[in-house]
Amino acid sequence: MASYRMSATEFLSSGTKVEDYARALLDRIAARDVQVQAWAYLDPEFVLSQARKLDAIPQEQRGPLHGVPIGVKDIFYTKDMPTQHNSPIYANDAPVVDAALIMMLRTAGALIFGPPSHRVYVHVFQPFSGKTTTTQFASITVGTKTMNPHNPARTPGGSSSGSGAAVADFQVPVALGTQTIGSIIRPASFCGIYSFKPTWGALPREGVKVCSLNFDTMGFFARSIADIELLADAARLEDDEKPIAPFKIEGAKFAACKTHVWPEVGPGTINAMQLAVKLLRDQGASVEELDLPGEFASVTRSHLQAFQQDAATTFKSEYIRSKDQLDPALVAFVENPEKTSHRDHLAALDNLAQLRPKIDIIASRYDAIITPSVVDEAPEGLTSTGNPALCGMWTALHVPVVNVPGFAGDHGMPVGLSLVAPRYHDRRLLSVAAAVAPVFEGGGWKSSL
Amino acid sequence: MASYRMSATEFLSSGTKVEDYARALLDRIAARDVQVQAWAYLDPEFVLSQARKLDAIPQEQRGPLHGVPIGVKDIFYTKDMPTQHNSPIYANDAPVVDAALIMMLRTAGALIFGPPSHRVYVHVFQPFSGKTTTTQFASITVGTKTMNPHNPARTPGGSSSGSGAAVADFQVPVALGTQTIGSIIRPASFCGIYSFKPTWGALPREGVKVCSLNFDTMGFFARSIADIELLADAARLEDDEKPIAPFKIEGAKFAACKTHVWPEVGPGTINAMQLAVKLLRDQGASVEELDLPGEFASVTRSHLQAFQQDAATTFKSEYIRSKDQLDPALVAFVENPEKTSHRDHLAALDNLAQLRPKIDIIASRYDAIITPSVVDEAPEGLTSTGNPALCGMWTALHVPVVNVPGFAGDHGMPVGLSLVAPRYHDRRLLSVAAAVAPVFEGGGWKSSL
Repeated sequence: MASYRMSATEFLSSGTKVEDYARALLDRIAARDVQVQAWAYLDPEFVLSQARKLDAIPQEQRGPLHGVPIGVKDIFYTKDMPTQHNSPIYANDAPVVDAALIMMLRTAGALIFGPPSHRVYVHVFQPFSGKTTTTQFASITVGTKTMNPHNPARTPGGSSSGSGAAVADFQVPVALGTQTIGSIIRPASFCGIYSFKPTWGALPREGVKVCSLNFDTMGFFARSIADIELLADAARLEDDEKPIAPFKIEGAKFAACKTHVWPEVGPGTINAMQLAVKLLRDQGASVEELDLPGEFASVTRSHLQAFQQDAATTFKSEYIRSKDQLDPALVAFVENPEKTSHRDHLAALDNLAQLRPKIDIIASRYDAIITPSVVDEAPEGLTSTGNPALCGMWTALHVPVVNVPGFAGDHGMPVGLSLVAPRYHDRRLLSVAAAVAPVFEGGGWKSSL
Repeated sequence: MASYRMSATEFLSSGTKVEDYARALLDRIAARDVQVQAWAYLDPEFVLSQARKLDAIPQEQRGPLHGVPIGVKDIFYTKDMPTQHNSPIYANDAPVVDAALIMMLRTAGALIFGPPSHRVYVHVFQPFSGKTTTTQFASITVGTKTMNPHNPARTPGGSSSGSGAAVADFQVPVALGTQTIGSIIRPASFCGIYSFKPTWGALPREGVKVCSLNFDTMGFFARSIADIELLADAARLEDDEKPIAPFKIEGAKFAACKTHVWPEVGPGTINAMQLAVKLLRDQGASVEELDLPGEFASVTRSHLQAFQQDAATTFKSEYIRSKDQLDPALVAFVENPEKTSHRDHLAALDNLAQLRPKIDIIASRYDAIITPSVVDEAPEGLTSTGNPALCGMWTALHVPVVNVPGFAGDHGMPVGLSLVAPRYHDRRLLSVAAAVAPVFEGGGWKSSL
C-alpha cells in the first residue's frame, strides 16, 4: 500500500508504482486541502495520466527521479499547465514553455504535480520598508489563501507559501521555490521542513519569472536532506571539489552568527540558537561566536535599494500594458515614490559585490555558519508572511543556505536555523546539513502531522 | 507612395498607412532576400493582417510607436510567431509568451515583423578562446546564412546578424538585438548603422533566452539616433537627470581610448580613430588620449571566464535533455574541457564588479569616451562573425555603448566607433551620440544601398 508519508528517496527504493504514490498524495491533498490550501492549480486526472505514462516506461529507460512528484511554484514556466504568477494579467495568457529546471527534472523522470499557491512578489518588500500595513499592501492578501499545516491560524511564510506547506503536509515529497529575499528559507522554517537556496547563478534560471535579476535564486523544499540532494543531483549542481561524505560532527568547526538583525529576534529563535550551540558541542563540535565586520550591517539596506530598483525595471512592462491589473505595491516599485536613484542602485550593487568575496573568506574558516532563519516561529494571521530580514542578508551575498528544522517557538510552532557556506560550496553545505539534521532533531520540535 | 527608405521617425510624422509602409518593406525584402537573407522567419500575410488591424485603430487610441515595424532577434519570446533560438530542440516547441520588451513595444503600437536570422551564442566564444576554427565551431554555420548587405561576400557580424543586416538594407527601420560580448555593437559597425547597448539591467529581460545572466544585454538597431531614442522612450529608459538637449560639440570634452586590445586593430579602425579625433576637434571639441589603469587589461580574460561558466550553467538543461541536438560548442561549455573552476568564475565576477565603479568615475570626466567598435571592417567570408574583443570589454563593465558609423575600411566597408558613458547615463549618451553622428558622417563612408 503506497503511503503519502514516503520521502522521494524512500519512494524510489520502494518499487511502488508511480500511479499508486500519486494517488496516495492526491488523496492526502483531497483530505487536507480545506485546511491548507497549498495549490494554485491542480488537475488530479492529468497527474494520474502522466503517472500511468511513467509506469509504462521500461525499467532501463527510467531516469533518476522516475515518478518523483514535484510541486512547482507558479512562477516557473510549465508547458502543460498554466503559469499565472498569481496575476490577472496572465489569467488567459499563460506561457507555453518549460523552464530550464523543469526541463532537467522532467528529463530525470519527475512527475510535475502542479503549482502550489504563492504570494506575489511584493509581500517581501513590506517588512523591509518599515512601514505599517497600508491598503496597498492589504490588497495582496489575494495570494495568501495557504495556511500553515501545523496551525491554520498562522502563516506558512512566503512567497513560496504553497511549496513549503505542501511538503510539510505530506502532499508532495519535494517542491521548487525561489528566493529574492527570504522566500525559500522562511517558509521552510515556519513549516518545519528542510529547504535549500543554492549559490546565486548555480542553477539555470531560464523560464522563471524575473523579479530581481541580481537576487532571484531557485531552490528546493523537502522533508530530508537526502531528498534535496536527489534534486541537486538531477540539476547537476557541483562544487569544485566533491565533498567526502559522510561529514562528521565530532571535531567539526562551526560559527554562530547572530548578525546585525539580532535585536529583532524573539524567544523562539533565541532558544534555537542557544540550544543548537549546546547540541553541537555535546556531539564534539566546536562552535565559536562570529561577529561580522561592521560593514556587513549595510547589507540589508543595500539589498532593499537594489531589489526595489531591479523590480521597478522588471515590472515596467506589465505596468505599461495593464497598470490597473497590477498589484499597487508593484505599481509603487515602478513609480518609485521614494525616488531611489540609479546612483543609489549602483552604490548598493557595488557595495554588495565588494562584500561577497569577504564573506567567502570568513565562511571558509568554518564547516558552516549557523545563523537564524527567521525572527521567530510563524506569526498569527495570514496577511503577513513574516519578516525576511535574516534571510535577505545571505540572499544578497549570493551564498548557499540550508534551513534545518528542529526547534520550537513559544506556541509550539517550528523554528529552523540556517547553515551558510561560501559561494559554490553547495554540495559541501548539503553534506554538513545531512550531519547537522539529526543533531537538531534534539531541539524539541517534532511534526505531529 | 510609401517608401521603404523612411526611418521610424519619418514614418510616424508622414501620415502613411501602416499597411502601405509594411507592404513597401515586404517588397524590399522580397527583392533583396536572396542577397541578404536576414530573416529566420517571416510571414508577410500575417504582418499585413496585423498592419490592417493597426490602421483600424482610431487616432486617439494609437500608441507612440503606432505601426512602427520592428525586427526581433529570434531569442526574444514572441507569442504569435515561433521563437526557436536557431536550435532544433525548439523547432516544434516554441514558447508562447511575449518577452517584456515585446510587451512594451506592442503596447506602444509596434508592428512585430519577425525574427531576423542570427547565430547561436557560441560564435562569440571563438575569437576569445584564441583557438583556430575546428569542426565543432564549423558546425554553427547553420546560423550564418545572412550576408552583409553592402557586400554579400562579407559577414554582417553577429550574433544579431539579421537585425543588423535588415536595418542596414532598409528592410525594417529598427530591430532588437542582444549583446553578451559584441553582438549589438559589432554587427552595427559591420553594416554601417547605429546601435545601442544600454546599461546592463536597465531594460527588463523577461522572455529573452538566457545565455549569460551576468552579461546578456538587450538593445536596439536603427539608421538614426532619433529612431533609437524612439525605442528608448517606449521602453521607458531614463537617467537620474534628464539630459538637456541638444548637446553641443563645440566645447565638449571627449576621451579617445584605444584600450589594451589596440594591438589587434587594423587600418580601418586606426584611420577611424584618427579621423574622429580630427573631426571633433575641428568642431571645437577637446579630445584627450585616455590610457586606462593597467588593471583594465584583465577585463577580457575575466569576461571570458565568467561568460563560459555562466553559459555552462545555462545550457545544462538542453544538454541533459538533448545533447545530440545541441551545438558542439555549447556542449563544450557544459563539459568544460578547460576545467575552469567555480573559484575562477567567482574571481572573474568579483574582479569585474570592482572595476565597474572605477570606470564610472573615469567616464564621468568626459561627455563620452570614444573607442573602437571592432578591429576593422567586416572580414571576408561568412563562417566567422568577427572579433568581438573591443565590444566585450564594455559589455563586461555594464556601461552603455552606442555605435556611430561614418568611417570606411580599406575595402570600402563601413567602420563604426563606440561612444561610452558611465552606467545609467544612457539617455545622456544618446543625446551626445545625436550630436556626434553628423560629425562622423564626414568620415568618408556612405551607404550606397
